This record gives sequence, structure tokens and C-alpha cells, in this order.
Amino acid sequence: MQSRIRNEQLKEKIMSPMEASKLIKDGMVIGTSGFTPSGYPKVVPLALAERVKRDNEKMKLTLYSGASLGPEVDGAWAEAGILAKRLPYQTNKQLRQDINCGKVEYLDMHLSHSSQYLNYGILPRVDVAIVEAIAITEDGNIIPTSAVGNSPSFIKSADKIIVEISSKQPVELEGMSDIYMLENPPMRTHIPIKTPGDRVGTPFIVCDKDKIAAVVFSDMEDHVRDLAPISDVDRAISKNIINFLEKEVSLGRLTKNLLPLQSGVGNVANAVLAGLCDSTFENLVCYTEVIQDAMLELMQCGKIKKASACSISPSPRGLKSFRENIDFFKDKIILRPLEISNSPEMARKLGVIAMNTAIEVDIYGNVNSTHIMGSKIMNGIGGSGDFARNAYLTIFSTSSIAKGGKISSIVPMVSHVDHTEHDTMIIVTEQGVADLRGLSPKEKARLIIENCVHPDFKEQMRDYFNRACEVCQSCHTPHILEEALSWHANFVETGTMKK
Amino acid sequence: MQSRIRNEQLKEKIMSPMEASKLIKDGMVIGTSGFTPSGYPKVVPLALAERVKRDNEKMKLTLYSGASLGPEVDGAWAEAGILAKRLPYQTNKQLRQDINCGKVEYLDMHLSHSSQYLNYGILPRVDVAIVEAIAITEDGNIIPTSAVGNSPSFIKSADKIIVEISSKQPVELEGMSDIYMLENPPMRTHIPIKTPGDRVGTPFIVCDKDKIAAVVFSDMEDHVRDLAPISDVDRAISKNIINFLEKEVSLGRLTKNLLPLQSGVGNVANAVLAGLCDSTFENLVCYTEVIQDAMLELMQCGKIKKASACSISPSPRGLKSFRENIDFFKDKIILRPLEISNSPEMARKLGVIAMNTAIEVDIYGNVNSTHIMGSKIMNGIGGSGDFARNAYLTIFSTSSIAKGGKISSIVPMVSHVDHTEHDTMIIVTEQGVADLRGLSPKEKARLIIENCVHPDFKEQMRDYFNRACEVCQSCHTPHILEEALSWHANFVETGTMKK
Repeated sequence: MQSRIRNEQLKEKIMSPMEASKLIKDGMVIGTSGFTPSGYPKVVPLALAERVKRDNEKMKLTLYSGASLGPEVDGAWAEAGILAKRLPYQTNKQLRQDINCGKVEYLDMHLSHSSQYLNYGILPRVDVAIVEAIAITEDGNIIPTSAVGNSPSFIKSADKIIVEISSKQPVELEGMSDIYMLENPPMRTHIPIKTPGDRVGTPFIVCDKDKIAAVVFSDMEDHVRDLAPISDVDRAISKNIINFLEKEVSLGRLTKNLLPLQSGVGNVANAVLAGLCDSTFENLVCYTEVIQDAMLELMQCGKIKKASACSISPSPRGLKSFRENIDFFKDKIILRPLEISNSPEMARKLGVIAMNTAIEVDIYGNVNSTHIMGSKIMNGIGGSGDFARNAYLTIFSTSSIAKGGKISSIVPMVSHVDHTEHDTMIIVTEQGVADLRGLSPKEKARLIIENCVHPDFKEQMRDYFNRACEVCQSCHTPHILEEALSWHANFVETGTMKK
Repeated sequence: MQSRIRNEQLKEKIMSPMEASKLIKDGMVIGTSGFTPSGYPKVVPLALAERVKRDNEKMKLTLYSGASLGPEVDGAWAEAGILAKRLPYQTNKQLRQDINCGKVEYLDMHLSHSSQYLNYGILPRVDVAIVEAIAITEDGNIIPTSAVGNSPSFIKSADKIIVEISSKQPVELEGMSDIYMLENPPMRTHIPIKTPGDRVGTPFIVCDKDKIAAVVFSDMEDHVRDLAPISDVDRAISKNIINFLEKEVSLGRLTKNLLPLQSGVGNVANAVLAGLCDSTFENLVCYTEVIQDAMLELMQCGKIKKASACSISPSPRGLKSFRENIDFFKDKIILRPLEISNSPEMARKLGVIAMNTAIEVDIYGNVNSTHIMGSKIMNGIGGSGDFARNAYLTIFSTSSIAKGGKISSIVPMVSHVDHTEHDTMIIVTEQGVADLRGLSPKEKARLIIENCVHPDFKEQMRDYFNRACEVCQSCHTPHILEEALSWHANFVETGTMKK
């Protein structure tokens, strides 16, 4: 493992995780590598949590990351009560509770804003960055593991850096990253990437070696999560999306190569993508945030040529297959900084097809992807807005019902808006597809009700819309204000949205 | 005037407006030049409306434009009842009524989506484009007048083109336009503009001269509108914004040159900008949609060096001054296609400071800029989302009250969301500034209530927020669903939001 530290001087910085954790003091801002349980530091965060609990230390930290982290950080730090502030995204259950009850201030933000805020000096600088690495180069530069995300920005911003050299991450990851950094305006120029497979930067993160304050060794694996089996509903959603895309090809708006695909993270998103294996599309490319199982499988079956992302985060099964075939994947995957992968410039220039999931959608096409019943946060917006807002095609999908049919995922008015009616284009449920492009609000409402609402809620929704049109005859977007959120209020009170 | 048609063949296409109007048939899609009462065709649209009314002709048209048009199109066509569909933006009173009562289907869309939808074949192609011009070149290319907007896309898409040569628009406008067109993905490359003043295209719109079906002469002026006198509230908003920007400079986040300014259209937006004249900022540049009076004055007082926009649309007084000093302005103003001026790539690359106005804002920072009481549309989102979403700094301003104090412009929950809490950064009223960057929802709410809400509504708002926090103790974004929209419902019922 010593050979992974290719700079002799830095070998003097080798220490135990516990020793390294002492660099972290109360009140500090910590920035970690990691993006959607992948490539995050483990042994130092765990040592810190252990120490704080053992010594009953006073410790309140602000934690920045690329996206969600594993339980060794978000879980352990929430449990130890050392988080004061967290951004830009997380998915841990315990931390979610702490956020909702106000113990932790949470900034649920567009991921592309996180690096921007940091680089522009709007967020406080990083005191200590903790970064998982494959190796440190002769010059002190850092080779990231399975995620790039915000690590380059944190390393640039940080006073001190702790490097966790991982013995579990395959050395073949070296060369997969492509680190290209943007200047701040007015010095900023365009991003020289023309296609998702282009390499324009360095395979390492440039790092001032004098800032590296500790090097520790880690033998812990990414805490990757199992994917749920693909359900019939997932399959139906996937089929509806693929049918829609095939129609676009037949209309001459897309070719069989489509345009670069972006896909959200999670079971449904993975299932949607999996369906492409049996499609007629070919030579596909991805420009996305996270590579999950389906994307790897689509590379193996020859459908996807290249994929650009911030991280690789498959299930345990997918990870095994990835590692066994890493030489196959090596030249097909490019891992990039968040600022590049989620750039509005890239989404509009490449003409990305953005496929994300919704918690709920309303009859006018507004999408809620963060809040349950308007108030409780689930995870966060993540990068969905970065892509959805600037893409060529913006697709949102959801099962038409939730909670065993007690909740309609299509509602009169969403209880929280993350993507406005101006941004959304295609709404998909297992019931069907609503192509909202070129339609007025009332036209959108009729189409969503007929094509996407579950049969159990269709009459109730037609009734709301018809009455809204009647009550509000001179209205572009008819609503009955007293009733618009009543489905949610009803659910909170009675346990069902059914009336 | 004949000399303005520099192609001999095309002189044969000279005809009367009435004759030209006969090219327009029932069911057609018409695309016109023009952007925010500027540079739109006048004599042919008026002739068409006259003919339809006189002959009681059956005529239903779809009308595309860059942004709002003068009364000679939107007003006359609405009055003649010949509009079936309208996009992407309009501000005419009669047409607004027709839209709200459902006589006209209206697509209120991000302006940057309008050219994208057309170029990608999602919207039906243009049958006839009607374009106001200074001249037609030897090759049949078109020199636009005071607006570029969507004209290049319409001319490219159209089957037939009617050119209105204007005798009123100054010939010195030739050379002010810079037409650069984008390929569709996957052929698209980056936009080669590095600073707002860069010229990268042609001074004319490329046009297949065989498509020019009629050339008419027009002696009608743009129907420019008076600006209201700057009120004390406007002045206070402007002062608050400037103080905020000065603080950013003192924090080292901006220099005295700021970054390229984008400003919305209208009285408040103009007033905000006007305040810059007495500021300490210097050598400013603008990358915006529309050039109004204040921007011209800021050029004259030496504050602004260069301004890039889609159109020049000052008040009658501003227009007079512009024309008298056109040689001074000529090398300082660049008129661009909408696709370039409103490009997400440009806003993020240049680091635009986006300053737009809101109808209402809620305590969590969501902004409504289109709908009155959730249902009636006012104008539309225009380009505000194109800039706000991708800018370096996103500022929304509004007077804290409306309707003589009966309406609070800060509400518990906006009745329509055009810009989400993720997109908005700085909220400004005459009461003060709320810098929401880096804050959690509850922190945002406290700041907006304390800094921006009018004293008459402050207690009522504190009460709502405190009760929401109490009722909803484990909530990231506390709301009382039954009450969130009650301020609006109350206003509709009783004529005031006060309780």
C-alpha cells in the first residue's frame, strides 16, 4: 500500500484514522469525496464519530459532499450528533429525521450550484477535505476512486486534506477520471467537451501537496445498496418511455442513436434504463450523474458506447460484475467533476434526454421531487434540475399511485414545486404518457388526466378539473384555491386521498 | 425606398400590405419578427385584420413571436378574433382576456424553449414569416430593424416570407445585429461568444431569397410605451439592490465591474437599473433581452460599455434620444437571436447577474411571476427563467404590497411557482434584502419575514410561520396545508389578504 503514495515526503504523513480525525475541530467545514454511496471516505469519519462519542466531545460540523454518502459518514455523524449543517444532498434515514425535526440545517440545492457557491466564495471555505483515493502521484496530486463529484472543488478550497488510500477500490480506476476545472467568470471559457466520451482534463485532481495533512489506509468497501427487483409497474413505465422515444424517432425528431441520456438514481430510474436493452436504439451515449447497474449492462450488451458521470454506484451484484470486467469498462466510462457533468452548458449543447423520477406531478405538469405532503423532505432535488431545465427532452416518471393506492401521485396541485410547468415536457406513469410540449395549461390537464392518472382517481380528478374550469371561467390555469391542496390535507387527516 | 431592396429580382415582389396579407390562410402558423413592442411587422398584420373583419372571413391562426408584440398584431388580431394559439409571450390586454377565458390557447414558455421547440421540429413549422426589415441584401438576406429575437428561426422554418421594409426605423440599425445560429445536437458546438460585446455572426439574417413571397413598405413606428415615473418604492428597491451588490464587492465576491447584467422589462426593472447611475460601479456590461431607457442612459453616462440584447425597446422619450445619438450607440449595442441571448450556456459561462421582478414570493423563496391568485395569467415567464436558473446571481424584486396594501406580495405559499426555492437567491422589496444563499428553508423564512415583508403583514406572517413550525414539528419546510393558500382565497372572497 505504501507504493500508492508516490511522493516520498508524503509517506511521513501516514497515520491512523483516529490520529487523522484529530485534525477535525468543532465548528469546522468538512468537504468529502463521494457521490451517491460511492467513493466517499470511511475510516476517518468513523474514527471521528467514535472519538466524539467516547470522549463526549463538543463537536458541530458543516458537511459538504458531491451527493449522498454512505452510513459511515451521514449515518455515523448523525448518530453521533455532530452535524450542524449539511449540503447539497443526502439519503440517510437517520439524517433525514434530524433534518426534518430541525436538528440539522439542510441545504437541498441544485448540485451544480454547490460547486458554484463554493468556488465563488458564497459558502464558507472548506477547513478539512477528506478524500478517498487510489493513489497520490509524485507531485502530490490525487487519483480519485469511484467518484469525482465535488472533490476537485473541495481539494482546491480546503486548508488541510486527509487522504484515505483504499485497498478495496481497484487500481484500474486510475485513468477513468477526467478532471477539468472551470475558472470563475469573467475568466471562464466554454467547456471543450464535444461528445460525452471526450477527455479534456487530467486523470488526477490537482492538489497542493503541502495541504495534505494526513494519509491513512482504508480497507472498507463502498456501502453499495441492493436494487429492488424490477416490478411490473417499473416495467410498464419503462415500456411507455421507450415507446415514446421510438415514436420520436419515427417522427424524425431523433435518430436511432437518440441523444445523450441522463438518468436519475434509484430503482425506478434503473428499471427504466434496463428496458433499453430490448429496444431498437443503438450506439447510445450517456451524459449523466451516476452509473448504476442498468447502464453497465447496456454497455455489456453493446447498446451504450460511452458513459460520462460523476460516479459509479451499482448494487453489490453490479459492482462485482464491474470489477470482473473493469478492463472492458475502462475506456467506456469517464468520471467527471460535478461542475462539468451537471453543467447547464453541457446539457443544452449536447441536447441531453433527461429522465428523472417524481414524487408527485400535478395536472398542469408541475413536479414535486423532494417533499412528502409539502413539508417533510425525502432526499432532495439532486441534479435533476440541472438536467431537466436545460435538456433537449425532459421526462419525469412516477407510479400513478403510492401507499397501496391511498395516494394518487397525480394531484390537482403539487404540495411543493421542484420543476415548474415550464420545465417539464413528458410525464410518464405506468398508465401512459402525456407529451406536454406545445400545449396550453388546460390542454395539459386534460391529457395528464386521461393518460396518466390511475383509474381509481380519474373520476375524482376530472371532477376537480371540471369544477375548477367552471368556478374559474376566465382563468388560464383554473384552480379552486381552497381545494387545490385538499387531497394532501385529506391524506394527512384520514390516511387516504380518496374522497 | 426601392433602394433598400438590393436584389433586383425581389423588386418584382413589391406589393400592397393587403395583397401580401392574402398569403395568409386559415389554419396557418405565422411567425413574426418583434421582441417586446419593438421591430415587429405592422402594416400586413393590420391589413389582414381589416380584411378578415370586412369580409367576415373564417381565419384561425397560430402566432409565434420572439416576445410581446405591439397592438398592430396582438391587439388587432385578438380584436378580429383570428388567434387560435399564441406563443411564447405576450402583454396585450385584450389578448390576455381572450387567453384567460380560453378563446386563445396560450403557451407561456421559457423563451429559450421557443426556438428550441421550433428548430427541433416539436412545434409545427412556420407557414408564413412576417419580418420587419431595414433592407434586403443583394443575396436576399434580411437586415432586421430594432429586434432580432426569433426572426432567424422563423425565416429558416418558413415556407414563405413577407418582408416589411420600414421607412421609420433608422438605417443606422444596419450593422447592430449579430446573427449566429446553432446547429441542433448532436452537431451543436459551443457558442463562441466570450464577452457580451463579441460579434461572432453576420449583420443580416441568412434567407433563401426564393422564399420571399412579398415585399411591402411600412411607414409605421414601433408602438413604444411610456414608462411610469420612478416611484419612491422603485427607488428603495433599486437602492437595496445596489447596496447588496456593493456589499458583495466589499466581500471580494465581485469587482467594481460586477458581472454581465441582465434586467427584466418594465417600470420596476428600468427603475432598478436607473439607480446604477449614481453607484460606484464602472465599466459595466449587459447580457440581457431588452434594452430600455435606463440602459441607454447608463451608456451615455459612461457606466455601461457594451450591451447585448434581443431588441431595443425604450419609451418614446428614450427612443428619441437613441435615434439622435445612434452613432454613439452603434458600436455599444449588439442585437442577437433569442437562442443566443437567452442561452443557458451563456448565462452560466458569463456569470450573469439576473435581476427580474416577481408578482409574489413566498416565505421559502419560491417566486410567482406569471399568475394572479394562482389562476389568471398576467403576461408570462418570458426569459426570466432562462437567466435566473443559470445565472451567477439571481435577484427577484417586488414591492412588498400591492392594491393599496390589500395584497401582501410576500405570502405563505405562492399560488403559482415559476422559479423554485432552488433557483432564487436574493429577494428584494422596498423593505429590505434577503440573501437566501446557503440557508435552509426555515432560515430563509425567518430572513424573508424580517427583512422583506411589509410591516402591515409582518405579525400575520410570523403567526403563520410559527404555527406551521408548531403543527409540523418534524418538517423541513413547515406548512399548514389547509391555510397555505388562504391569504389568496381570502383576497378573492373579501378583497384583502388581511385577517
